[in-house]
Amino acid sequence: MTNENVKLIEEKFLNYVKKITAYQEAISVMYWDLRTGAPKKSVDGRSEVIGILSSEIYQMQTSEEMNGYLTALIEEGEPAVSEIALKTALDCKKTYDRMKKIPLDEYQIYVTLQTKAESVWEEAKEKKDFELFRPYLEQLVDTTKRFIGYWGYEGNKYNTLLDMYEPDMTVDILDEVFENVRDGIRDILQQIQSSGKTFDTSFIYNRFPKDRQRDFSIEILKQMGYDFDAGRLDETVHPFQITLNIGDARVTTKYVENDFRVAIFGTIHEGGHALYEQNISKDLAGTTLAEGTSMGIHESQSLFNEIFVGRNLSFWKKNYDLLKSYSPGQFDDVPLLDFYRAINEVKPSLIRIEADEVTYPLHIIIRYEIEKALFNDTIEVKDLPKIWNEKYKEYLGIEPEHDGVGVLQDVHWAGGSFGYFPSYALGFIYAAQFKHALLKDLPNFDELLAAGKLDKIKEWFNQNIHQFGKTKKPLEILQDVTGEGPNPKYLLNYLTEKYKEIYEF
Amino acid sequence: MTNENVKLIEEKFLNYVKKITAYQEAISVMYWDLRTGAPKKSVDGRSEVIGILSSEIYQMQTSEEMNGYLTALIEEGEPAVSEIALKTALDCKKTYDRMKKIPLDEYQIYVTLQTKAESVWEEAKEKKDFELFRPYLEQLVDTTKRFIGYWGYEGNKYNTLLDMYEPDMTVDILDEVFENVRDGIRDILQQIQSSGKTFDTSFIYNRFPKDRQRDFSIEILKQMGYDFDAGRLDETVHPFQITLNIGDARVTTKYVENDFRVAIFGTIHEGGHALYEQNISKDLAGTTLAEGTSMGIHESQSLFNEIFVGRNLSFWKKNYDLLKSYSPGQFDDVPLLDFYRAINEVKPSLIRIEADEVTYPLHIIIRYEIEKALFNDTIEVKDLPKIWNEKYKEYLGIEPEHDGVGVLQDVHWAGGSFGYFPSYALGFIYAAQFKHALLKDLPNFDELLAAGKLDKIKEWFNQNIHQFGKTKKPLEILQDVTGEGPNPKYLLNYLTEKYKEIYEF
Repeated sequence: MTNENVKLIEEKFLNYVKKITAYQEAISVMYWDLRTGAPKKSVDGRSEVIGILSSEIYQMQTSEEMNGYLTALIEEGEPAVSEIALKTALDCKKTYDRMKKIPLDEYQIYVTLQTKAESVWEEAKEKKDFELFRPYLEQLVDTTKRFIGYWGYEGNKYNTLLDMYEPDMTVDILDEVFENVRDGIRDILQQIQSSGKTFDTSFIYNRFPKDRQRDFSIEILKQMGYDFDAGRLDETVHPFQITLNIGDARVTTKYVENDFRVAIFGTIHEGGHALYEQNISKDLAGTTLAEGTSMGIHESQSLFNEIFVGRNLSFWKKNYDLLKSYSPGQFDDVPLLDFYRAINEVKPSLIRIEADEVTYPLHIIIRYEIEKALFNDTIEVKDLPKIWNEKYKEYLGIEPEHDGVGVLQDVHWAGGSFGYFPSYALGFIYAAQFKHALLKDLPNFDELLAAGKLDKIKEWFNQNIHQFGKTKKPLEILQDVTGEGPNPKYLLNYLTEKYKEIYEF
Repeated sequence: MTNENVKLIEEKFLNYVKKITAYQEAISVMYWDLRTGAPKKSVDGRSEVIGILSSEIYQMQTSEEMNGYLTALIEEGEPAVSEIALKTALDCKKTYDRMKKIPLDEYQIYVTLQTKAESVWEEAKEKKDFELFRPYLEQLVDTTKRFIGYWGYEGNKYNTLLDMYEPDMTVDILDEVFENVRDGIRDILQQIQSSGKTFDTSFIYNRFPKDRQRDFSIEILKQMGYDFDAGRLDETVHPFQITLNIGDARVTTKYVENDFRVAIFGTIHEGGHALYEQNISKDLAGTTLAEGTSMGIHESQSLFNEIFVGRNLSFWKKNYDLLKSYSPGQFDDVPLLDFYRAINEVKPSLIRIEADEVTYPLHIIIRYEIEKALFNDTIEVKDLPKIWNEKYKEYLGIEPEHDGVGVLQDVHWAGGSFGYFPSYALGFIYAAQFKHALLKDLPNFDELLAAGKLDKIKEWFNQNIHQFGKTKKPLEILQDVTGEGPNPKYLLNYLTEKYKEIYEF
């Protein structure tokens, strides 16, 4: 091909991709609206519209036109094709292959199954009845196994699922990493429990008015460097961060009047995701690369902010008085250090999303072990409640009274998202690694927090991670920033050091 | 064609139309979001997305596929084709013809011109400089004239423009109706001014906190029968009502702390539009018929509520104490009757959207006369400021100090919306006619208001107007409900009677 021809195809391809991202923006706005206040009678019509636009996207992603662009551009390669166009093409190629390998009729049955399974799951959780959900989960697992057959796999069938959320992540890596984390955390937990120390946390549950929680949350987001000209904060039931376009990364949160922690740490968490999205290079606008590179790296940004910033003593040196001013009286008899200990209390619990930072990874590892076994046919769906409860007993020392607070607690499996859970723990591990790397450039990290200079920290992440969007793969970023692969040492060191001080063991 | 074939085509056609309305919903949600709080850096990307989806709609509306459906279904007709499908086809045919007759390149230039003209208009209004806007307005008028050439016209060129907003409305009808209205109102105005009466309105401008205005607005919307499960109330700069789908008709309003009237009457006005949209038959969902039948009939619903309900003494007998409770102190020295007179004060003013109900139609008639002359080549764009000012002097006895509060005040022309303005006055005329018809069924209208039973009134409109959506044409509805065509007598009677009492002439 002549250079001119290549440029022409590249231009057409990028316009085609822009159209896909335009449809995605439309869907995202409608989804955001549904979750932040659309009236209930809007839901049916809206869901249908989202379905119609989604199937248009599917058609574009798998069209002959798309295939033509991808073949031409990938074959030609750099330098005739620009770096951004080529990386976009490779990204679209991955989607194209993944979708094309599944027969259309099977895919459609699967989508219907997902929707149905989610509502049955909701009912089953409500009724604490796993048997209600079981046939759907079995179908979801079977279908996914069949899809793995279409997609193929290397080494372990579960690798194909992992790769969808965390490119290049494998069971080999995770087995080693998670084993270390599991043993290390069980060790720390043991020491915490042996310390016999407990803290008064009663003040947490006093009333903190909703609108004051919102005002405080806004203050903290601003301190973090969240750009309110490129986003907004809204209320929802299950908080999420959503990006509508390169200039619009929104945060949602939930206000519980009798537990301010939900909103504050939730906002900082979603705010961490948003800082990532707001600072992706504008050069990537309108391509599929203008998003976080993987679930794990994304989670590293939310958890870094929630945990390494938000649960840090220095952060509260700066912000405790501010917090007090938004809820007069509530914290009068609570010295800073008591407050700090209370918000870092460690206590094994049944619900993942309510877990403290020490036990949190154990919740994830349990799910990882179960998923891995499920897709390698060493366990069956019908055995899940039993296995779940045994693992909770073994790792956390507690057992669910019923499946509603056990195996049925999370929506992920009902949506067919197998392979997703490990990202949560990986994000925490990465975050600890990034913290270690960051300290080399910003050894005064704690002083920055105490001075409210979170923008310096944000800039470091902008520079090292955010700007690249999806142009760098997750393990590439990790290597570039930390000089190594996933290494749980830093997380374990962090937890040991922090909780040794808090629990004085 | 066999009946089966017809049914098949009908089904395909309705699915195709559903796809178009799905895209329209997506655009409406994005537009609503832009106007109610999207962050400013979102705007560029969002506008591009709206542009992409709009051009997809254009392509579907004018496609060969669409043409095929329309030809087949319209030729076949009822009863082989269902009534809803046929009426949808006729509606789509109108759009198809209107768009197809304009060469695509001319249409694209026109769309760009519109966008540009709107931003130049904004600047010109700000700078009070008509000359800045003149070349754009000239191009808009010239282009529209050329389009009328493509579209054709019957009787008067301006009829083609009227028909876009008020199907079957003509200059012949309007000339007669508006002459009556103009003369009648100038007569009433004369008597009001001769009465020498003035009212103390100073209390209006005391501070009424924004959030209390919102709470009161919500109360009134509920009283009107607005369904908050099928809509919501938000804040914006230029209030509007927008329908997203059959179960989601939203209202927006604006809060001015030193003039509560803006929010209250604005909310009732937009709420009136929303009552129409919320009560269209669900059978029309997903077709192009699921909307108000014309701008004039739509405006009759908003004005009926704003004026015949909201500015009625009985309405305030019910709601004045409630209003007082939301702004303690503000109305302490203002008896109900003084309040009623103050909110109905008549005073010729320059700005249409701030006009009282007596002078409001004159603002519209001035614009009608100017537009009609413009498209019949009896005046030129360059003469507009002079003509505008002369007419204001003649009809209202006042003259703009500058074009910013004169010919440049409204955005409509900058957007190319010629032929739109008459709907505002027609809506008022229709509303008075509907009121007259309604009294036959609900002679206790005032008692219903005083008892807060607005739902009875809403039900009457549901029955007689709302449910039909676009399945009946505006003049058909008018005929069915009132037994006649546009007749300004009822409006003039209403105004005379009401203001005779208020101004005691």
